[in-house]
Amino acid sequence: MRHWEAIFLAQEPINVGLLGLGTVGSGVVKLLEQNGTAIATKIGRPLRVARVLVRDTAKPRAVSIAPELLTTDPQQILEDPAIPVIAEVMGGVEPAREYLLTALARGKSVVTANKDLLALHGQELLETARAHGADFFFEASVGGGIPIIHPLKEFLAANRIEQVLGIVNGTTNYILSKMTQEGREFAEALAEAQALGYAESDPRADIEGDDAARKLAILASIAFNTRVTYPEVYVEGITRISSRDILYAGELGYVVKLLAIAREEGGEIEARVHPALVPRQHPLAAVSDVYNAIFVRGDAVGEAMFYGRGAGQMPTASAVVGDLMAVARNLVHGATGQVACTCFRSLPVRPMGRVECQYYLRLTVRDRPGVLASIAGVFGNQGVSLASVIQKRSFDGWAELVLITHRVREASLQDALKIIGGLSVVRAIDNVIRVEEGI
Amino acid sequence: MRHWEAIFLAQEPINVGLLGLGTVGSGVVKLLEQNGTAIATKIGRPLRVARVLVRDTAKPRAVSIAPELLTTDPQQILEDPAIPVIAEVMGGVEPAREYLLTALARGKSVVTANKDLLALHGQELLETARAHGADFFFEASVGGGIPIIHPLKEFLAANRIEQVLGIVNGTTNYILSKMTQEGREFAEALAEAQALGYAESDPRADIEGDDAARKLAILASIAFNTRVTYPEVYVEGITRISSRDILYAGELGYVVKLLAIAREEGGEIEARVHPALVPRQHPLAAVSDVYNAIFVRGDAVGEAMFYGRGAGQMPTASAVVGDLMAVARNLVHGATGQVACTCFRSLPVRPMGRVECQYYLRLTVRDRPGVLASIAGVFGNQGVSLASVIQKRSFDGWAELVLITHRVREASLQDALKIIGGLSVVRAIDNVIRVEEGI
Repeated sequence: MRHWEAIFLAQEPINVGLLGLGTVGSGVVKLLEQNGTAIATKIGRPLRVARVLVRDTAKPRAVSIAPELLTTDPQQILEDPAIPVIAEVMGGVEPAREYLLTALARGKSVVTANKDLLALHGQELLETARAHGADFFFEASVGGGIPIIHPLKEFLAANRIEQVLGIVNGTTNYILSKMTQEGREFAEALAEAQALGYAESDPRADIEGDDAARKLAILASIAFNTRVTYPEVYVEGITRISSRDILYAGELGYVVKLLAIAREEGGEIEARVHPALVPRQHPLAAVSDVYNAIFVRGDAVGEAMFYGRGAGQMPTASAVVGDLMAVARNLVHGATGQVACTCFRSLPVRPMGRVECQYYLRLTVRDRPGVLASIAGVFGNQGVSLASVIQKRSFDGWAELVLITHRVREASLQDALKIIGGLSVVRAIDNVIRVEEGI
Repeated sequence: MRHWEAIFLAQEPINVGLLGLGTVGSGVVKLLEQNGTAIATKIGRPLRVARVLVRDTAKPRAVSIAPELLTTDPQQILEDPAIPVIAEVMGGVEPAREYLLTALARGKSVVTANKDLLALHGQELLETARAHGADFFFEASVGGGIPIIHPLKEFLAANRIEQVLGIVNGTTNYILSKMTQEGREFAEALAEAQALGYAESDPRADIEGDDAARKLAILASIAFNTRVTYPEVYVEGITRISSRDILYAGELGYVVKLLAIAREEGGEIEARVHPALVPRQHPLAAVSDVYNAIFVRGDAVGEAMFYGRGAGQMPTASAVVGDLMAVARNLVHGATGQVACTCFRSLPVRPMGRVECQYYLRLTVRDRPGVLASIAGVFGNQGVSLASVIQKRSFDGWAELVLITHRVREASLQDALKIIGGLSVVRAIDNVIRVEEGI
């Protein structure tokens, strides 16, 4: 041990109260042990896990931790004046919300990885933090270890952000990557993701898009300085994407991705999560497997992208401990509460019906003359202009059509589809996927 | 104007002294004007350009600025106690260094975009800042508007960084992109870059790799917590890359990029800038035109990438104003000097001869039996193992060979090339380019 290390380790440690010792919590303990000396040197004081809230103190743990640090009583952490900072890695909305509000009200700073909680109660938590001069950081809630929240709040803060958009769910990106690379169907690729631990046994939050919607609510709130909550985000998952859609998209020069998109336009916020056709040459098209990537467009910086592992024990622990270090620096300098809630505006979220998109449509129709004309006629009457119509194959008197529209309001497209779906020559509207051309 | 805006604009402004009113300086003035109200709200106080150091107060300016704010006397800024923060955007080593040391010694915080200065005198400036409790931020010095310095210093700080690597010079990336996409030769592509303003009339600092080397010195110092200065970085530019190399690289599945690479290994730092063959499926291969991208590998976070415009007026201004906002928040909270010099280790830079790489070699040799065997024999005797040898074409009794080696020490490769270059059957060693396979 060298001289400077001895100095920093001799300093009074900063006590961290850990709520939860699951995958991420164990990662935090491991990382603080692994890089503790360098961390102490960087912030001037060691970080010490002083107490850990668990459900069962007797359960065997994946990390070595002194048994006397474990407790099942949250008050032993929340009411301990010797613990100035809490890391919440237990997940779920309650009782996490209640614990964090108590901690903040005691002036403790809080670091959390809990996107479910934030996407619903971010405002309440941030306002409580502000009222008590505490830090409330949540870098780990979006994009795993990728620094995106702090950059948006701090180092891109000189920009008016115009758009934030990306791939923020690793499970669905893995599934779509497998479907694209290996021609699999959705169910097969999902099963493989589950076997590899990339998807949970109950995969709904991922595949239905809800996880991505929660992250988008957080990102949009920060990017546009206005509160966007999870229920306001339009959500469609990837369960209806078939290998056929991916094949046809590829033939047209696109890759299918689950995108989370938020932009400010005309005093309103667009916030939506859905599968989309992305041009193959766009950098997002190259983001494969469990990786995440978030694009930000600012009036000064132009396009910037942040890319990395969006989940996993150690990437998430990296973000949690990074936030703990930021709190610790502020504690050392008596300066917590510097970067508080930035939602100082109040813009409405645009109803999906008024959002303009381009669409890929796959239809099964009667394979006979005049059918195409009648379909095109309906679209025309409804103000939906078609960019291309391609007949992909015919079988048993049916033909499969792929249509790409020009930009049109969602409501107009839905109106047209209602009529088209009722035509006797149309067997099925097999899929409707948005096309994101100019991202 | 809404209520909160009125409140924040009524606060006493924080006075900024601007050193320089060239491209970036004008961008800073423009950005503070454009987004000033939101900036004031985010930090709680307006930022005001209080005085600007220029060479000629009479010169017409691209931005509207009150003439009485302009001065040719640096003391009017450096010695003004009402100016707590300086933004240095004049460039060059002297007198910028002297001005900033003076400002820091007066307790002023400093924001700079000056990579030339930092890559040589970073330590002196950071230590002076620390001694006086001032902030010294330089996000704009690397990667233009892309947040990379703060993320490395702060939000990835829980990681032991293993490697930082990327494309950090937009001019050379533009030239190589044009050569790749359009089959141009170097001189042609350079002329085009100059015509578009992407390359300077004296392009040497870019095309010889020095600009990238300066940025790498800064990145490596932060990533590995040890001082790396510009003269310690091994540098090769792109002037010897021919369209033929790019063609052959493409046939082998690679793209040619100017990479800046730093890693820690065995208690030493590797720091080198040179053209390299990058696998086509690597995300860096897709970084085209003037874009920059920086890959970071940390023991917890895994791979993370930061991508965006690496230069230009407004991206750079975005980073400068972002840093000014960070200083301003610290001033408001009496907490400047929190994130100081992080070079608390002292590791040597590994001499290039001991660095291990893979190599692409292009040779012109006699087109006759036995030549290949004699060349392979020399490589074998020198411990250089060949992964592949391909004869690309023959003409007038000569043959062009492309060889790819396995990983080998630079010194062994150079020894082998000396002998090969002296063989009577070898007309020329046309090019030697490193291959970065496992990045």
